[in-house]
Amino acid sequence: MAGRPWNYRHDDLALRGELYEPVGTPNGRAVLVVHEADGIGQNVRSRCELLASLGYVAAAADMHGGGQVLAAEDIPAALDRFRSDPALVRGRVGAALEALFETTGFRPSAVAAIGYCFGGFAVLELARDGAAVAAIVSFHGILTSAAPAAAGSVRAPILAATGALDPLVPPRDVAAFEEEMRAADADWHLLTHGRAYHSFTNIGVDGLDDPRMRYDPVADAMSWAAATAFLEARLR
Amino acid sequence: MAGRPWNYRHDDLALRGELYEPVGTPNGRAVLVVHEADGIGQNVRSRCELLASLGYVAAAADMHGGGQVLAAEDIPAALDRFRSDPALVRGRVGAALEALFETTGFRPSAVAAIGYCFGGFAVLELARDGAAVAAIVSFHGILTSAAPAAAGSVRAPILAATGALDPLVPPRDVAAFEEEMRAADADWHLLTHGRAYHSFTNIGVDGLDDPRMRYDPVADAMSWAAATAFLEARLR
Repeated sequence: MAGRPWNYRHDDLALRGELYEPVGTPNGRAVLVVHEADGIGQNVRSRCELLASLGYVAAAADMHGGGQVLAAEDIPAALDRFRSDPALVRGRVGAALEALFETTGFRPSAVAAIGYCFGGFAVLELARDGAAVAAIVSFHGILTSAAPAAAGSVRAPILAATGALDPLVPPRDVAAFEEEMRAADADWHLLTHGRAYHSFTNIGVDGLDDPRMRYDPVADAMSWAAATAFLEARLR
Repeated sequence: MAGRPWNYRHDDLALRGELYEPVGTPNGRAVLVVHEADGIGQNVRSRCELLASLGYVAAAADMHGGGQVLAAEDIPAALDRFRSDPALVRGRVGAALEALFETTGFRPSAVAAIGYCFGGFAVLELARDGAAVAAIVSFHGILTSAAPAAAGSVRAPILAATGALDPLVPPRDVAAFEEEMRAADADWHLLTHGRAYHSFTNIGVDGLDDPRMRYDPVADAMSWAAATAFLEARLR
């Protein structure tokens, strides 16, 4: 049940995501899935397949253009550009969301956005931008922003799942995120895994030999269960 | 599928819990469920029924003796006694756990303990005492203890679910719990619901007209999903 190419635009840039139709009975809801720093890969594809098996339309966004997967040496510059320019990342992921509305015809109340690592950061930026979707979930995403949420600006309920040992998301960033969400009067949930590192949902990182990252099957199962219950409770 | 009386002892005190056999295929695992401040009631009974429907043996502990449900005016004194005497609460819930081992014949690696409000506090005390069960889950439980965990003393993996607006579990207590778990080198998970009050899993509290408590169906669904995934991943 592979995805089919899903073409859309952000201003002048042609984007090439992937679209996964529901397997079995469609539930009339859709989830945008935003990839890690490099591009659409196995983790995003298997999440899309899992969501499709639950009846969702799942759409993998393309954040770099042309469906490209960045080489390791090109990632830092791309991340810096997105991290330093909230309007760029919000516009890019917002374009995917608009395309998903158009592709499915679903109302925002039937649509969620989730993301992994960089994608987790991107969907939180969408929340800070006031996107009117029914739920937003960030898995081991960067929790801080160059443009923190203003009071009342966050409309979507948020779940963030994070690892307490993630060097990319240190405790002070987790505390700052909580404080930002409180100050913004957002509807937020935070799941902290005491022994988890970065990329704890991604079984592929164990081959990278990167000490910042580690797959954690328990944290993966718990965060996925909480996230799917959140989608089930929030999407209409 | 009501529970049957389950009699056991803590020293000289006769305790009367309830035992729920698995419905359908038994999974060879068991969960001890510890009640709120008053005693075994509808919330605990429906959790036991849900767990039995998943294949678990579920056992509702009795913390007050004789299966009694305390009147409102008797609750503060009972809570103060348990809160101020870690050995008492640990012994009382530990007696239920030993009885569950004996009743089922299961090894500790196939057994979990969960609790609600006071029961959530009680199962965390069990964790601080070094109980060798496979998982411990506290729902809107008091997170602080008169005898915080020492380094290396917590053997059971822990999930605590809490409401950020719970006046009985203020943010400083949540922060202290995190710090206690880090210092103890425990295997911990913390799920914080930004808009949840005390007793967010208990639909019965909405009739009490107590401003500290509120049922929250989304937080209930998310915390239950995370908890059951945790049990599924940890019990062997």
